[in-house]
Amino acid sequence: MISVAEALEDVLRLVSPLDVEEVPLRDAAGRVLARDVRALRTQPPFAASSMDGYALNRAEAEPDALFKVIGEAAAGHGFDGSVRAGQAVRIFTGAPVPDGADMVVIQEDVTRRGNLITLGHGIDQKDNIRPAGGDFSAGDPFTAPAVLRPSDVALLAAMNVDKVPVTHKPVVAILATGDELVQPGETPGPDQIIASNSYGLAAMCEETGAAVRLLPVARDNAASLTQAFTLARDTDLILTIGGASVGDHDLVGQVAGDLGLEQSFYKVAMRPGKPLMAGRLGDAAMIGLPGNPVSAMVCGAIFVTPVLRRMLGLEQLHTPTKTAVLADPLPANGPRAHYMRARLTDGQIRAATRQDSSLLTVLASANALLIRPPDDPARAKGDVVTYMAL
Amino acid sequence: MISVAEALEDVLRLVSPLDVEEVPLRDAAGRVLARDVRALRTQPPFAASSMDGYALNRAEAEPDALFKVIGEAAAGHGFDGSVRAGQAVRIFTGAPVPDGADMVVIQEDVTRRGNLITLGHGIDQKDNIRPAGGDFSAGDPFTAPAVLRPSDVALLAAMNVDKVPVTHKPVVAILATGDELVQPGETPGPDQIIASNSYGLAAMCEETGAAVRLLPVARDNAASLTQAFTLARDTDLILTIGGASVGDHDLVGQVAGDLGLEQSFYKVAMRPGKPLMAGRLGDAAMIGLPGNPVSAMVCGAIFVTPVLRRMLGLEQLHTPTKTAVLADPLPANGPRAHYMRARLTDGQIRAATRQDSSLLTVLASANALLIRPPDDPARAKGDVVTYMAL
Repeated sequence: MISVAEALEDVLRLVSPLDVEEVPLRDAAGRVLARDVRALRTQPPFAASSMDGYALNRAEAEPDALFKVIGEAAAGHGFDGSVRAGQAVRIFTGAPVPDGADMVVIQEDVTRRGNLITLGHGIDQKDNIRPAGGDFSAGDPFTAPAVLRPSDVALLAAMNVDKVPVTHKPVVAILATGDELVQPGETPGPDQIIASNSYGLAAMCEETGAAVRLLPVARDNAASLTQAFTLARDTDLILTIGGASVGDHDLVGQVAGDLGLEQSFYKVAMRPGKPLMAGRLGDAAMIGLPGNPVSAMVCGAIFVTPVLRRMLGLEQLHTPTKTAVLADPLPANGPRAHYMRARLTDGQIRAATRQDSSLLTVLASANALLIRPPDDPARAKGDVVTYMAL
Repeated sequence: MISVAEALEDVLRLVSPLDVEEVPLRDAAGRVLARDVRALRTQPPFAASSMDGYALNRAEAEPDALFKVIGEAAAGHGFDGSVRAGQAVRIFTGAPVPDGADMVVIQEDVTRRGNLITLGHGIDQKDNIRPAGGDFSAGDPFTAPAVLRPSDVALLAAMNVDKVPVTHKPVVAILATGDELVQPGETPGPDQIIASNSYGLAAMCEETGAAVRLLPVARDNAASLTQAFTLARDTDLILTIGGASVGDHDLVGQVAGDLGLEQSFYKVAMRPGKPLMAGRLGDAAMIGLPGNPVSAMVCGAIFVTPVLRRMLGLEQLHTPTKTAVLADPLPANGPRAHYMRARLTDGQIRAATRQDSSLLTVLASANALLIRPPDDPARAKGDVVTYMAL
């Protein structure tokens, strides 16, 4: 058996960042910026008023000073002339500040009669002007890699970057195996159950930024498995579920080996999820996940998500861990790292009583995986432990 | 001016949960479960082996005991007969445990010669059987409302729920207004800038679960605005950006009023984002956001996201706030709540030096909004403050 860290390093070595494609800005949110882009514009492109008021010369801004309003500057429509002594220009938020003016007196500080304004006594000393380039200048970089958030999209828009270079979405084939499985919506026989892991893993991969191809369930025979692998040949990552243990009916490793899989490892010192394999199969990476529902989902979070992040070209590959205070004592852990289904409430974490790897109800009601290192001693209530948010 | 809490309450009153639609399970991730569903299956549907080994009668499981292997039970293919005294059935993980057996001895504890097995000396006392219904029983509820995560999708699959009742996605029309705006990819005139807020807000709304219709930019005249509102009439929520201030060029309130907007309020005691309006316009709710880029995005996070969550039928409407330790002192706050762009690193939070509401670079590099209540006194380094993650 190898450690989780060794296994993860091994799996990550199977993949590298995918190619770049350009997408319209409207479709860029949630995608990974693949290379630096540069602002095509300076923002603001001109000194702009930050308030509604009157643009004038600061040296003349005395209490009771009188100005003649010689024109108007609105957002999108600047004033063409210059502001000279004793003159002011009516100005609105976002409008270019006219030549000769270096201050905007807000309209609340002004009394206007016809084309004349008189300043009040308590004028704010702020100039209410946003200097040209105050936000960014043409050529300023937006640095890759980055998962593009809504505020990034707004910034790229302001930079006039309307085509965004992003990493291709990894195409993931998900292949559940087993004679006991039928698809949701079908009527299972007396010895059968519903294929659930493939749907959960598909959602997890899509959430991480992949495009998923859900393959038909493969039967427990070499012909069915071989056919399924053929359907997955042109993908970036093949995830198999089940059939990776040591039982006589676990054919996945054998069939994948016949098809040329260079298998990287087999057993990981972790609970849930001990049996795992990984390798390259043709142009795709392959990860063989255990068949128990919770094992499959936990191994997905621990191994598959970082692999997808590397394919996406991200630097932060691992799901970050945090610490919380233990709400109940825990017995000593065995020789395998244990990812316990747990609930975090107000900084206190409590492991679920039932940790069997078949219990999807327990996983669905968990919001964290409490991480026990191998041979972790017994822990008391109040101890600080590590977890990963779900 | 009214407080943020009052404004939010007011805005939330404008909307109610939308209708329910059924989607295939494959498309349910990230959607909001709209009503309780019930498991159509018991899981496991039968007592199932959790290991590869031999099923036999526990009373006979003594060191060196000898058994005749009378058949095999694999996942998907149970053993048809009963296990009697001196008999065992070869069994694989996930297979139904045959009648007459109440224990699975793992294969590592057994020596097999032909059809005979002999038990070893250190047999584990665990029965390695998952009882029928150990995870859930037919009729058990999956409770709404809930944003469906990958593990929920896996559980619904196991329950054989292949059509999922979810809340309709709110359809949001986003309408940026202003003669100064051109779309990304266009060439702005000398007094113009790129419409950026609409793209950022679209991404934010989609992230929250809405479907967005990005309308063409409306010009600063009544005809253009009226036409734009007409294009938005059949949506659930209309977001206008800009034109909601008090300047002569801010026509949105006037035009919306002419079209029947019952305006709920106008100014909120917050920075950034003071000017804001809201009301019902025909069958849609309308929120008028300020035009400054950062104001629009912050008001989106504070007001629009909770409104969408209510439309989606969720109970948790507000973005949760947390606390962190201040890394730098802060001066006293004024009479308006201040949502400061800030960076959180290792539990320490630091407000950006420049808080002008036009600076998208500052917003994009922030990962939190540090929340100052109205008239909050000066804060020292080390003080605990409240923030909202971005």
